[in-house]
Amino acid sequence: MEMVSRQPHQPDVGAYMSELGRRARIASRVMARMDTAAKDAALAAIANALENASQHLLAENRRDLDAGERNGLDAALLDRLALTDQRVRTMAEGLRQLMAHADPVGEITELKERPSGIQVGKMRVPLGVIGIIYESRPNVTADAAGLCLKSGNAAILRGGSEAICSNGAIATCIRMGLSAAGLPADAIQVVEITDRAVVGELVRMKEHIDVIVPRGGKGLIGRISQEALVPVIKHLDGVCHVYIDDRANVEKAMKIAFNAKTQRYGTCNTMETLLVARGMTEQVLPRLANMYREVGVELRGCPNTRALIPEIAVASDEDWSTEYLAPILAIRVIDTLDQAIEHIHAYGSGHTDAIVTEDLTRARRFLREVDSSSVMVNASTRFADGYEYGLGAEIGISTDKLHARGPVGLEGLTSQKFIVLGDGHIRE
Amino acid sequence: MEMVSRQPHQPDVGAYMSELGRRARIASRVMARMDTAAKDAALAAIANALENASQHLLAENRRDLDAGERNGLDAALLDRLALTDQRVRTMAEGLRQLMAHADPVGEITELKERPSGIQVGKMRVPLGVIGIIYESRPNVTADAAGLCLKSGNAAILRGGSEAICSNGAIATCIRMGLSAAGLPADAIQVVEITDRAVVGELVRMKEHIDVIVPRGGKGLIGRISQEALVPVIKHLDGVCHVYIDDRANVEKAMKIAFNAKTQRYGTCNTMETLLVARGMTEQVLPRLANMYREVGVELRGCPNTRALIPEIAVASDEDWSTEYLAPILAIRVIDTLDQAIEHIHAYGSGHTDAIVTEDLTRARRFLREVDSSSVMVNASTRFADGYEYGLGAEIGISTDKLHARGPVGLEGLTSQKFIVLGDGHIRE
Repeated sequence: MEMVSRQPHQPDVGAYMSELGRRARIASRVMARMDTAAKDAALAAIANALENASQHLLAENRRDLDAGERNGLDAALLDRLALTDQRVRTMAEGLRQLMAHADPVGEITELKERPSGIQVGKMRVPLGVIGIIYESRPNVTADAAGLCLKSGNAAILRGGSEAICSNGAIATCIRMGLSAAGLPADAIQVVEITDRAVVGELVRMKEHIDVIVPRGGKGLIGRISQEALVPVIKHLDGVCHVYIDDRANVEKAMKIAFNAKTQRYGTCNTMETLLVARGMTEQVLPRLANMYREVGVELRGCPNTRALIPEIAVASDEDWSTEYLAPILAIRVIDTLDQAIEHIHAYGSGHTDAIVTEDLTRARRFLREVDSSSVMVNASTRFADGYEYGLGAEIGISTDKLHARGPVGLEGLTSQKFIVLGDGHIRE
Repeated sequence: MEMVSRQPHQPDVGAYMSELGRRARIASRVMARMDTAAKDAALAAIANALENASQHLLAENRRDLDAGERNGLDAALLDRLALTDQRVRTMAEGLRQLMAHADPVGEITELKERPSGIQVGKMRVPLGVIGIIYESRPNVTADAAGLCLKSGNAAILRGGSEAICSNGAIATCIRMGLSAAGLPADAIQVVEITDRAVVGELVRMKEHIDVIVPRGGKGLIGRISQEALVPVIKHLDGVCHVYIDDRANVEKAMKIAFNAKTQRYGTCNTMETLLVARGMTEQVLPRLANMYREVGVELRGCPNTRALIPEIAVASDEDWSTEYLAPILAIRVIDTLDQAIEHIHAYGSGHTDAIVTEDLTRARRFLREVDSSSVMVNASTRFADGYEYGLGAEIGISTDKLHARGPVGLEGLTSQKFIVLGDGHIRE
């Protein structure tokens, strides 16, 4: 197996990347025709290779950690970067779980006979070559490789430069596993140079790459969206709302509002603004305020909220559109369902929004009219997640409307083409 | 009803367009919750308004035709621009046919109960605001308006400047019909200024527009793709192939190869290159050459083709990747199915490709491996069309892989969001 080797001197980035792209395109043609058994065998072989190479992975990871410490990376970043025996086993386990998932490729649906006599249907097929751009966690290398492989795609993975040695070692395991299962080693390529120009090249290689999936902070995603010529499946803000309707069950409302804010603070599906119908404020707000106070959540409210809980700060207009990712919550009292929906459309990010109500008509209206990737009735926004939805692992959560919306699993990495079956049919 | 009026002096284009966008976004919220009956009533009312205004439409169209003649438009362009009583009736009929089509909006699929107890499914919803950019045919104004309306979207339509009076008159009928049915008149807005900067503004209004659908030549689509910040559903070349396998039925092969080339020359789903397996050349090529010669199709061939029909020109490398849109056909002799698929991937445009074979294994491989928006077995490429596929009218044919691929009908103008139904469920 010939491979693109790590270069001590940075080569011409454009030439290097387009060679990766050319090889990925060729490998993608082979991947598209691989059956499920072959892909599952490769997943198993990669999982074994990772576990067998565990000591080597930790040693390479140690080099990244040492360099990170020298470069003054903060403790949180170093923790995300670190591999342990357990984390290596978790990567391997993730790949094995993908084997149990249904292969989306090849499914034929909606096959119908037309008046002309032809049969027309749709066949699910891989997208082709997927470019993944991510930050410091090395486990993404194995997770993303597994998702792309199972969905029949080739992939070019570009991780953070601070994880370059770890990712290189993981890439070697992936190539070994692919080869052992008779799949092309070029199907999953990891970019092994750290030049910053790599990202710019990757997102502009329209001839070699079919879609870019960035995983990272807003800064990274914003820059990629601006520069990309290749379509991007992107995940922007999660400014998520829970609306407690005046026909809500109070106990359900308390549980959901508490869980949606406090189960984890740093996730994109955490509630950032609580909307409360005027008729529910007295039953709900003082009790909720106590519950939040006990766990250290800072509250900011509209004037009507502060009339009931005067000790909290005033919520500014900026609060309504802020993704805190922290133990802070904005609260607004609302007059009608229409006003709640208007607030969500005006200030939300189209990620995940929930209503708590026992009123069927209002639940149906909220489901239909709220224009977000996940819309919920009587459930915590924290459920917006590939595992919770049964998609298996997710490559990300899309806040775009085209193609994939919400958590993106294996199916989001495929598309559907039309197939036509005839018996010598011609158009008259 | 207040309306954005045609300005004798061109106003500030940016301000004009963002006002259209702002209104479209507001109208799109109303459209998203309209039921099928209301949308169908609007389609009927617009159809009636068009027929009732027929004389006015023809008079306004006369002004465009006069201006076109003064500006030296060629006869083909003037023909595309011209309205007649019959063409007005056809527009109205197209809208009435949309009434019979199933409304894609609101459909809930894949609703499953998860181990956590929540139910998770998908709901089909409108995309929001669609920008359509097209050239001289005024009937596109009514067709596109109907498709956007039935799929619950708002739209901003920007037709060619040579049809400005015709499109303005059609726009008035659309607004009348929308208002008569109680739908917001701003749901379908036609840009009534001709400034060329309009297109640039339209494709960059990310906050107001969810997707751009350009309908027109390669030049227009290329320019839009370069400039757009809004996602574009685009249709590039149609370099379509028919591959006659050596296990083809000869009579079916002749019929299909003749029909795919000659049924119409100027359409994107017309065959431009014929691939013939070596074992079939003697049975197929001389007879086909005679049939093509009789209807005036010019042939260009590879050396092996010319060995059998020496009087034809040599096909250059450029021929293999050219969309002739004319009575010209390139022919290449092929050794294996693999070589046929490689040729299609190397020179084709991913639009529509067909195999003629009686061999099931080869048919399955071709269907699976050829990476085009429509892949066919024993049928003419000319079937790649929204009507033939049963989608009803089409807004275009997408050669993109993400979101919509192939003919784009009502469903292609919608997306799916996740819905979650709980009963006080929280994440543990």
